[in-house]
Amino acid sequence: MLSYLYSSHHPNTTTNPQEDPVTGIDAPPHPFDTAIATEYLGGHRIAGRTCPDYANMVGPFGGVTAAALLRAIEGHPDRLGDPLALTVNYAGPIADGPFEITARPVRTNRTNQHWQLELSQDGAITTTATAVFGIRRDTWSDLELAMPSVPGPDQAEPQEFPEFIAWGRNYDLRFLTGAVPDPAPTEAQPASPDSVSTLWLRDRPARPLDFAALTAMSDAFYPRVFLRRGQYVPAGTISLTVYYHATSAELAAQGTEYLLGSARAHRFAHGHFDQNAHLWGHDGTLLATSHQLVYFKG
Amino acid sequence: MLSYLYSSHHPNTTTNPQEDPVTGIDAPPHPFDTAIATEYLGGHRIAGRTCPDYANMVGPFGGVTAAALLRAIEGHPDRLGDPLALTVNYAGPIADGPFEITARPVRTNRTNQHWQLELSQDGAITTTATAVFGIRRDTWSDLELAMPSVPGPDQAEPQEFPEFIAWGRNYDLRFLTGAVPDPAPTEAQPASPDSVSTLWLRDRPARPLDFAALTAMSDAFYPRVFLRRGQYVPAGTISLTVYYHATSAELAAQGTEYLLGSARAHRFAHGHFDQNAHLWGHDGTLLATSHQLVYFKG
Repeated sequence: MLSYLYSSHHPNTTTNPQEDPVTGIDAPPHPFDTAIATEYLGGHRIAGRTCPDYANMVGPFGGVTAAALLRAIEGHPDRLGDPLALTVNYAGPIADGPFEITARPVRTNRTNQHWQLELSQDGAITTTATAVFGIRRDTWSDLELAMPSVPGPDQAEPQEFPEFIAWGRNYDLRFLTGAVPDPAPTEAQPASPDSVSTLWLRDRPARPLDFAALTAMSDAFYPRVFLRRGQYVPAGTISLTVYYHATSAELAAQGTEYLLGSARAHRFAHGHFDQNAHLWGHDGTLLATSHQLVYFKG
Repeated sequence: MLSYLYSSHHPNTTTNPQEDPVTGIDAPPHPFDTAIATEYLGGHRIAGRTCPDYANMVGPFGGVTAAALLRAIEGHPDRLGDPLALTVNYAGPIADGPFEITARPVRTNRTNQHWQLELSQDGAITTTATAVFGIRRDTWSDLELAMPSVPGPDQAEPQEFPEFIAWGRNYDLRFLTGAVPDPAPTEAQPASPDSVSTLWLRDRPARPLDFAALTAMSDAFYPRVFLRRGQYVPAGTISLTVYYHATSAELAAQGTEYLLGSARAHRFAHGHFDQNAHLWGHDGTLLATSHQLVYFKG
């Protein structure tokens, strides 16, 4: 999995201190916006391209691919409402360079809309997806999964992903439990008895939260098998589903504050495991829940 | 939602006590097999039809639609391996009668295969889906989500869904917590402080477990909002994702025993909630986890 290392070839351009993340005045685009930029070509065709800042060990970070697919719908002239659910299936590797998305609204109802998507390069499908967008309205509400009571982000040490995970540099990660194992430990690391990681996270540089950023963050938890095994092993997401619990106003209210994320697995077996994540706003609002199925070796 | 009541028009034919669910000798097909029967038409086209035994309040039970989509892949000559993940999006109502499924293997890798599916009636798409099938192999394994310690199925009272939920009659449901509210209570029912239901369940009549039955059972938990509100309100699944943790041998080892299921929601807001479910075999094996996004009114 280490055969594609973009990091040493593409200097990170994401830490320009002159940028105002709120107003964006006189500032270059945030690297996340560059990474998910799509161009509507007409019909149901949308053009995009990978961005070295968001490279993973092989191909792009899955979260940024998911965000680009979401953004393709957001930029489609037929779009109704905001995201409710997104499922992305990582069918094959995405090469560095341009790609094309086909995003078709296959059924539009009064209050929701169903999408089918494909991401392809040179005519070969690398990624499939479905999405549901819709219009939210006021109803009875209740939060059952309260944000855990944890120390604030200023009480947690920042942790860097290793150098060869380029996309990790674009997130400010402050782990409370379940930090990333050392990829090249000088002595054996203890395996964790559970797969739970809890951390504060936000874009680096800070960027106002929106559905696309929330999508990418829902995949910003490293593979749980690393934690359980106390080491890096080959692993990759096969399928990712995100449920959006928040309105756009609730996202806007987060501004550039840290979110609290927590992830865990339920079963590791036969080369696969599940990975579930919850993302709360700093004010305790549950913004998104995500689920993924991950393959692993070892 | 009560405008389509199939139950009074179609007597339930599922409780023939002469049927041997294991051998099937001299027995009619199990009603579940009738309900998910598909006919491969060639190309990527598969024919199916709704079955009144598995009707819901409006259209068919979503779990049986998901199982029919899975079965369409299982009967496709190009299929590789067993189910790993399935996502079904319920885009519009399915009318009583025949339907056609298009199931395309869009990418086949060495050990897994990605599918895109559509279910349509008279040329209109009612349901979309994606699936990942694959070949499992032995790896390091661990179960993090152990089966809760609960009384056995013989210690729990059987509970019937109301008459107007036809499909409920095809399941033997033994709730330990979070039973179904009375749809027409003579006095106000207390709302539950949480959305958890835990129950033993199996097909009725009993039927050996397979991936299709597991798929349907992963959707056999009634909408969590009923429990929280202490009453029936209009609600319907928008998107369902199932992760299959078990091998076919692990499923076969369950025979016709009860499974233990547990379901809950995390947030109710803006007309939607999430619903997560876990299904364990009687031997404690975690067989499947599922997630769904549900719309509701009220």
